[in-house]
Amino acid sequence: MTDQNDNNPSFVLRAVKDVAFEDRPVPALRDGHDVRVHVAQTGICGSDVSSKAPSMKCTLDKTELAQVHYWQKGRIGDFILNSPIVLGHESSGTVVEIGDAVRNVKVGDRVAIEPGVPCRRCNHCREGAYNLCPDTIFAATPPWDGTLSKYYVVASDYTYPIAEHMTMEEGALVEPVAVAVQITKVADLRANLTVVVFGCGPIGVLCQAVAKAYGAAKVIGIDVVQSRLDFAKSFAADGVFMAPKPKPGVDPVEHSEKVAALIKKEFNLGEGPDVVLECTGAEACIQAGVFVAKKGGTYVQAGMGKENVVFPITTACIRALHIKGSIRYTTGCYPAAVDLVASGKIDVKRLITNRFKFEQAEEAFELVKASRPDVLKVIIEGAV
Amino acid sequence: MTDQNDNNPSFVLRAVKDVAFEDRPVPALRDGHDVRVHVAQTGICGSDVSSKAPSMKCTLDKTELAQVHYWQKGRIGDFILNSPIVLGHESSGTVVEIGDAVRNVKVGDRVAIEPGVPCRRCNHCREGAYNLCPDTIFAATPPWDGTLSKYYVVASDYTYPIAEHMTMEEGALVEPVAVAVQITKVADLRANLTVVVFGCGPIGVLCQAVAKAYGAAKVIGIDVVQSRLDFAKSFAADGVFMAPKPKPGVDPVEHSEKVAALIKKEFNLGEGPDVVLECTGAEACIQAGVFVAKKGGTYVQAGMGKENVVFPITTACIRALHIKGSIRYTTGCYPAAVDLVASGKIDVKRLITNRFKFEQAEEAFELVKASRPDVLKVIIEGAV
Amino acid sequence: MTDQNDNNPSFVLRAVKDVAFEDRPVPALRDGHDVRVHVAQTGICGSDVSSKAPSMKCTLDKTELAQVHYWQKGRIGDFILNSPIVLGHESSGTVVEIGDAVRNVKVGDRVAIEPGVPCRRCNHCREGAYNLCPDTIFAATPPWDGTLSKYYVVASDYTYPIAEHMTMEEGALVEPVAVAVQITKVADLRANLTVVVFGCGPIGVLCQAVAKAYGAAKVIGIDVVQSRLDFAKSFAADGVFMAPKPKPGVDPVEHSEKVAALIKKEFNLGEGPDVVLECTGAEACIQAGVFVAKKGGTYVQAGMGKENVVFPITTACIRALHIKGSIRYTTGCYPAAVDLVASGKIDVKRLITNRFKFEQAEEAFELVKASRPDVLKVIIEGAV
Amino acid sequence: MTDQNDNNPSFVLRAVKDVAFEDRPVPALRDGHDVRVHVAQTGICGSDVSSKAPSMKCTLDKTELAQVHYWQKGRIGDFILNSPIVLGHESSGTVVEIGDAVRNVKVGDRVAIEPGVPCRRCNHCREGAYNLCPDTIFAATPPWDGTLSKYYVVASDYTYPIAEHMTMEEGALVEPVAVAVQITKVADLRANLTVVVFGCGPIGVLCQAVAKAYGAAKVIGIDVVQSRLDFAKSFAADGVFMAPKPKPGVDPVEHSEKVAALIKKEFNLGEGPDVVLECTGAEACIQAGVFVAKKGGTYVQAGMGKENVVFPITTACIRALHIKGSIRYTTGCYPAAVDLVASGKIDVKRLITNRFKFEQAEEAFELVKASRPDVLKVIIEGAV
Repeated sequence: MTDQNDNNPSFVLRAVKDVAFEDRPVPALRDGHDVRVHVAQTGICGSDVSSKAPSMKCTLDKTELAQVHYWQKGRIGDFILNSPIVLGHESSGTVVEIGDAVRNVKVGDRVAIEPGVPCRRCNHCREGAYNLCPDTIFAATPPWDGTLSKYYVVASDYTYPIAEHMTMEEGALVEPVAVAVQITKVADLRANLTVVVFGCGPIGVLCQAVAKAYGAAKVIGIDVVQSRLDFAKSFAADGVFMAPKPKPGVDPVEHSEKVAALIKKEFNLGEGPDVVLECTGAEACIQAGVFVAKKGGTYVQAGMGKENVVFPITTACIRALHIKGSIRYTTGCYPAAVDLVASGKIDVKRLITNRFKFEQAEEAFELVKASRPDVLKVIIEGAV
Repeated sequence: MTDQNDNNPSFVLRAVKDVAFEDRPVPALRDGHDVRVHVAQTGICGSDVSSKAPSMKCTLDKTELAQVHYWQKGRIGDFILNSPIVLGHESSGTVVEIGDAVRNVKVGDRVAIEPGVPCRRCNHCREGAYNLCPDTIFAATPPWDGTLSKYYVVASDYTYPIAEHMTMEEGALVEPVAVAVQITKVADLRANLTVVVFGCGPIGVLCQAVAKAYGAAKVIGIDVVQSRLDFAKSFAADGVFMAPKPKPGVDPVEHSEKVAALIKKEFNLGEGPDVVLECTGAEACIQAGVFVAKKGGTYVQAGMGKENVVFPITTACIRALHIKGSIRYTTGCYPAAVDLVASGKIDVKRLITNRFKFEQAEEAFELVKASRPDVLKVIIEGAV
Repeated sequence: MTDQNDNNPSFVLRAVKDVAFEDRPVPALRDGHDVRVHVAQTGICGSDVSSKAPSMKCTLDKTELAQVHYWQKGRIGDFILNSPIVLGHESSGTVVEIGDAVRNVKVGDRVAIEPGVPCRRCNHCREGAYNLCPDTIFAATPPWDGTLSKYYVVASDYTYPIAEHMTMEEGALVEPVAVAVQITKVADLRANLTVVVFGCGPIGVLCQAVAKAYGAAKVIGIDVVQSRLDFAKSFAADGVFMAPKPKPGVDPVEHSEKVAALIKKEFNLGEGPDVVLECTGAEACIQAGVFVAKKGGTYVQAGMGKENVVFPITTACIRALHIKGSIRYTTGCYPAAVDLVASGKIDVKRLITNRFKFEQAEEAFELVKASRPDVLKVIIEGAV
Repeated sequence: MTDQNDNNPSFVLRAVKDVAFEDRPVPALRDGHDVRVHVAQTGICGSDVSSKAPSMKCTLDKTELAQVHYWQKGRIGDFILNSPIVLGHESSGTVVEIGDAVRNVKVGDRVAIEPGVPCRRCNHCREGAYNLCPDTIFAATPPWDGTLSKYYVVASDYTYPIAEHMTMEEGALVEPVAVAVQITKVADLRANLTVVVFGCGPIGVLCQAVAKAYGAAKVIGIDVVQSRLDFAKSFAADGVFMAPKPKPGVDPVEHSEKVAALIKKEFNLGEGPDVVLECTGAEACIQAGVFVAKKGGTYVQAGMGKENVVFPITTACIRALHIKGSIRYTTGCYPAAVDLVASGKIDVKRLITNRFKFEQAEEAFELVKASRPDVLKVIIEGAV
């Protein structure tokens, strides 16, 4: 089905800090359920600039420097870069070829691509927790190639048609929205709850926006960068809070407890918020998040920083908190994310601060790597 | 209703490390829903030997020395001993007087006493989470008197008739069984699951026994004292594991991760147990518990030791663990515990290693304080 | 505390179809947790015009004639009118006296009154399902007096301060909003779901509005009266559907199945909606509701009509439906309802079609009894 | 891989009431995940004697004549016999060939076969509710062949190794145990609950046994045949109840309500059982089941009889019941069932009343069709 004269330019991570453009073969469908997508736009998340286990870190916000520790240690689970992979996993595109068993999309459909296709056979998959499948083929996670190619082949049920009025940029940004949808799903976030979100990077503000769209009574965003707080306030948060730095000599955990008390007081949260979404991975935020949650409340760890942190376990125990980790997406996250964008409930376009042509991919990655507070979401156009 | 000539000998904690017997007034019913119980037997848990916040620590096992740290720091929430209180909160007895609105028990009934009566009006109470009620009157938690008196007055719906063939000793031990029932309830523990329990003290082995009674597929007990492991094996556990000490110079967290791997291998737990119940509060156990749990698994913190521990938060996040704290009891725990004892599914008598007369109460407390591995459950007869 | 010269005019149901005004004694607080409220506005729901078990029927919509059957049979549970009771249970008012233990409101506060105060001691109450408490004191449910008096005494935790900008009319209409909140809570209604609501009377349209406020993807209202459909469309529904009458000779169940198919097709619901809220109690709607729900979907029975209906049980079984009954309210419904009104997410004022002075109460009840399609919500001002 | 000289004798349903033996080709693996099993034993459930939609009725008990109505009407969903199919779906066997991607079993393994393999791609599958997948290949459900052949090819993850000490007969009976496990899973059946099971046929008594193994406090079996009650009592039930026939002229629904009251009284169930499992499909049992359940209780419809029944919907609504349908199995049911048999918790051998050689398959089906109360489970040996 593929055109012999067609090519497939790809942006490849060859080794740590070594990227290059390669012309790879146009990928063929593996079975009747696959589709081939001509990639249109690809967003970059902080995780993509790390040399190892890129997509594992797609919930990391950039407000803090946790990814540096991660980078140094270089281990998340068992994902290690042993051979070159194509980068990129937040993409939209146009379906150009479908297998004979495909029913949900047709050639010409504009789709958002869910980047991880699980094995469908392990217990996690069979139980509906496919985000935990150890055999997932996840774009740009070693040894799997990502989406920064002209063409990407994926199982059809992991592509989702986007609304006619949505742009391809919006289609690419369905991915971080889906991450936020999963975080709120893990949190069992419903209407009328109060929510504190640590982090006002892309994932943090999207969590705030999803919470509002779901009828949250009050959503508070926390960060340490004023411009991010300003953006969060204008985007979805009912209130924002600049987390103070600890004074020299103060015990860090006591400082975190004090910050929690300040947040509760400032926003009239009584015993504490019903839900805490931790989207930074910063040790101080994790501690403050546990301290701020109300008794019986829910705390979701979505950000990733240091592997181990000093954690107020006795508080978590006595307050009967529900602490849960969120990773990737599960069934329904992508459709929900498409709807949230299509309905105008979340204006993802406002997240895009920088746009690059396909040929400028390295430049785009350098920009994200710089962790500039004014850079929220960077997006790269697909190869024509 | 009370006999003017009657007396009410009580065992009182006057200040830190200062206990004494006092003859207190026979307590009167406060309203038509109250009952007065002639206390028959009272168990002591590790928490009772601490000077502050006794009952908060009733899930602490004694295999490790965590309570020493706690003792030193002396703070759990806001419970502080400011005035003398009667000790004791794990009691059975005979109903000797009932209010005019009481329907569930009658004079002469032998009952187990649930030691905490909540306010019934706060949101936690109204939602069914009365274990989180901040205004609970909890026996032997400052400023509330405990049950080591001849008489104890309590709301009738917090007394539970015990089966005819149950002894008063068994009635007193309904309390730790109810603690274990709550822990398994928090864990959403069902049949056919694999369960690892850290700690083989009273609460640990009772959790193991409850898990087996609930149809668990495999229950493993972990401890560092051989005699406790032997007891656990003979009591309910399918397998037991002696947690190795770290070698000098080994990173403690890496050691914990290694212990987790050993447990999985030894008991053929594949990806890890479905449920981890942490009943020690020891930092090494907490870490190993997080590392050993399977992806998407449940970890319940029931033991209490240090306030803050080094915690593998990234592992918890990536594995999408459900981490929950268990505290006290909720509706149904006491009836379930009575049934488990009455049906013979749990032979609580085997836990009792030492018996004391009421007059020997101080001696009993000294014994518990000594944290001897051969002492499991100490029980004190009520005043005649 | 009560003024000796004060009076307490009340609107009383003396026997079936026999109402009258009486001057009753000003009620005194029963304990330190009570408050006395000067009633400001009282809404009437369809159930109030029935002679028996008024408040049990507060989820009944008037689009169909089910309440006539109910009226005839006159039995819902064991609630029977044996002695005169004051009518009314949907009220707002001003706190004029508080007990010494009251903390949540103060004299002068404007509040919405939750009309049922449970016993707080039975297992249902202790588990958080106080809507099932058999000993609830429920306004205007025999033998308990309702709120159509100048003064009403109630436990303080069942009064909820309303926002400053809310009118007393809005405060009274918090009750039906709370009914709708409970229905959606029973349905576990979350964002991004598709919802079909049978009935476009007050409860039906409020369910539609709550669903939209909670982020539902698509909400469809069904009715048999065009004006109600028009109102529903203008109020909250994304789409409305006029349920066709069966042709003579057609099997009623087959007709219902056909209606279900029409609904799915018309609104592009694929396999069916995620959630069905049945707010009519009409047999045909119940059947169509079961047939329309998707496999594994949720169906909530909120309306009440005939006691027994022909029910497609095999369909319910094979499709693994979750069928649940909703009754009254649980913790959080009133605060959520106040917020939904205060935030402007639900404009309850639009439901009010007819206003009456206190002295016109009988006239108001006659109007509701007439079941006119143009009458949605009738409201009666309190005695001055 | 298949031996050219091998044959594959099969027992085929050619049309309504027309069965025959055929020699079919030995089936080949379809992909690397398949295995070929040499079938050892096959149980027959009531559904298999019906001409249409056999396996849909595998939860039907034979105490009543519901399957006759079903037979007449001949419709469950859209499953209709249009071409010959091999019968049988409750089988054990030995793995004789595996695909190259198979990891969970190896040649020579003795396994129980889960008879339905879903599409793995629809939303139901991706959410973990694969029992609702419309594209499931289900043995002996038109147009899919069943397991009454010498060889059966199935996806490897739908075969489960059985314990060494289990017989192949026990392996075949894992299927009805898995049905009972799913029913109790749908019921969210946990320890310490009271359970009433309508029906003491194979599925009914297995539900009773599973409930006991899961720690149920009290399990009551209901039937109309004394010998079945006797068996149930000796198998697992704590108590059994002979449902009385209605007197002439008594309203059937009122009779059902009276039966419910009798059950509650006889077994001291107070407000009613926590859980009702309806395993007959009989209208009177369905009604009595709704009437007997406690407020807020759970009722699971597992039996199938008439498509539509007179149903006490108002009672279901006011009592806030949770009514759920159970169909087929979900992840974990088969492993749980294997464990329950392997551990000796359920002695399935006792269910087998009649054994047949492969050549006697028609005789076996005739016997089941006769619906004799002394016939519980009929089992057919595989072709050699």
